[in-house]
Amino acid sequence: MPSVRSVKAKGLIIGGGFPVSIQTMWKEPLRADALEAAAARVRGLAELGCDVLRFAVPALGDAEVLGRLAAMVEMPLVADIHFDWRIALACLDHPIAKIRINPGNIGERWKVEEVTKKARDKGVPIRIGVNGGSLPQDLRERLERGEIDRAGALVAAAEREVAAFEELGFSDVVVSMKASSVAETLEVNRRFARAHDYPLHLGVTEAGPLVPGIVKNTAALVPLLEEGIGDTIRVSISDTMETEVAAGREILAAAGKGRAGITLVSCPRCARAGFDTHAFTARWAARLYALKTEATIAVMGCVVNGPGEARHADLGITGAGDKVVIFRKGKIARTILREEADTVFEEELRAFE
Amino acid sequence: MPSVRSVKAKGLIIGGGFPVSIQTMWKEPLRADALEAAAARVRGLAELGCDVLRFAVPALGDAEVLGRLAAMVEMPLVADIHFDWRIALACLDHPIAKIRINPGNIGERWKVEEVTKKARDKGVPIRIGVNGGSLPQDLRERLERGEIDRAGALVAAAEREVAAFEELGFSDVVVSMKASSVAETLEVNRRFARAHDYPLHLGVTEAGPLVPGIVKNTAALVPLLEEGIGDTIRVSISDTMETEVAAGREILAAAGKGRAGITLVSCPRCARAGFDTHAFTARWAARLYALKTEATIAVMGCVVNGPGEARHADLGITGAGDKVVIFRKGKIARTILREEADTVFEEELRAFE
Repeated sequence: MPSVRSVKAKGLIIGGGFPVSIQTMWKEPLRADALEAAAARVRGLAELGCDVLRFAVPALGDAEVLGRLAAMVEMPLVADIHFDWRIALACLDHPIAKIRINPGNIGERWKVEEVTKKARDKGVPIRIGVNGGSLPQDLRERLERGEIDRAGALVAAAEREVAAFEELGFSDVVVSMKASSVAETLEVNRRFARAHDYPLHLGVTEAGPLVPGIVKNTAALVPLLEEGIGDTIRVSISDTMETEVAAGREILAAAGKGRAGITLVSCPRCARAGFDTHAFTARWAARLYALKTEATIAVMGCVVNGPGEARHADLGITGAGDKVVIFRKGKIARTILREEADTVFEEELRAFE
Repeated sequence: MPSVRSVKAKGLIIGGGFPVSIQTMWKEPLRADALEAAAARVRGLAELGCDVLRFAVPALGDAEVLGRLAAMVEMPLVADIHFDWRIALACLDHPIAKIRINPGNIGERWKVEEVTKKARDKGVPIRIGVNGGSLPQDLRERLERGEIDRAGALVAAAEREVAAFEELGFSDVVVSMKASSVAETLEVNRRFARAHDYPLHLGVTEAGPLVPGIVKNTAALVPLLEEGIGDTIRVSISDTMETEVAAGREILAAAGKGRAGITLVSCPRCARAGFDTHAFTARWAARLYALKTEATIAVMGCVVNGPGEARHADLGITGAGDKVVIFRKGKIARTILREEADTVFEEELRAFE
């Protein structure tokens, strides 16, 4: 069931059948004396396909720094608040696009109420982020006593918060329920989506380093997205933000929710390779992913699969002995020397800009 | 439908309901003067969970070098042959566990017949590897004229080869049909598995660099494995063999076909982190993945999710201010200084050996 409701975070609509957006999260302290560099990195993330960027705001003073950055960039920035509701209030004095709170650790109800009041005044949506690692005490105890399963505890925690927000008359919310296993992630989001029409933020929490992290996120998110569940995603891995965004793009594409852009096919290399595809794709990946044209580009090492794959790609480059062959839409365009590969490839890429 | 037939590659059974095996492929020329180093790397791959290792054998002289390596290691080694059937014959003079040929580029039928005869004499199975990039001429033409789709062309190519092998009385085969898209990979393997009971080798060809490669392979292989399709997998990405094997392990685990081993949960790091989980997990990943005990180990940066996740793990390590806390099966075991983390973690790991 696709979400019916939607929220607006700066210029971005989450839910309501709008394209699924990609998020990542800033991984270092945000330094007041390095905001120009931070803004440049935010713009770079936008080029790669990032739609929303979240920042932990661990101390009251950090709210103003984040606010200054938010004023410098187009991207909607989200403040992630734990424990102290006053930080959420402080963030709302700045052009923050969305607040994420984990009500399970904010404390008394009146604190949450103060946050929702100010968020409504400012027209700022809130994500209710429930997490397997920080469930409310009573649900954790019921879980430990075996009265509910982990998925049930997560859904119950989210439903309780949504109900509390509804009592406060605040429905401008996005919900996330994050577990660290694929099966639980599938289960909690399916259960919630059957019963509610709030926009859902999908992700697997603490998914681990790069390889297991991407595998778990793909295995959990692709089926959900194919079922129409999920309005915004964050691929959370112990790696860079840029990698998280690239993984998000690929997951959307694999689920048939991709946006226009380059599909890169490249070979894994073997003893036959006459052309170093690893180094070539590493050198060109960021440039290729910043292109918004729908096209397939093939980077192949050798003549076994090279010309075959390259032939059905819009642009192909493949090794052939000590030469390199460029294909365009199924036809050999040029045969060049290996040293010319980068220069010629850049010339060819201009057609996709 | 699970495969009924099976083949035996050295000590490894592929098919017949046996555990799904993990393969990777050697990515450089195999040098005769560096076989000790190669053997050490093969043993390292075995530690990480690799069951079968394939080598391109581009020239006749390479067969003997591969044969010498095969005699040095326990792992079944596979010779990958294109174009020249005489190389396949030469490989069969050595303790090679399996031959992979792409009959589409071997040429006349009598050449394939010679290979099957000698393979039968030696008790060596053959993988028929059909590839979207190197389809037989007539099928490529029918595809280009729009008479069949790409999935249909791949399945037809595989069925033609299987029939030819059956005519030669040789059924000791594994089949692979590799396409570069997720949808085609799903489609060709489902179609083939409905009609045939040969063991299937799964993979996405030319899946691209690390991130798109892992996403595509996960999106294609997890559903197939969950449906009981697939007896051996190779995650083909433009990255190291070790990464391919790690991705294979994670894909099997996500599909519920995993083997005993460590599940690593770790956090993506944010501005709250008091403990560098990226560096810590990078340092420890290979050691953790070599452990064969079924256990969950959590590496967390901070107190928000850290103790929660770490608590349900068998072993957990998490930052807490300038200290580091070790959890064992839900109980705080030790609070230590950050500098002691590696030493103490190694002590704790001994319980899992």
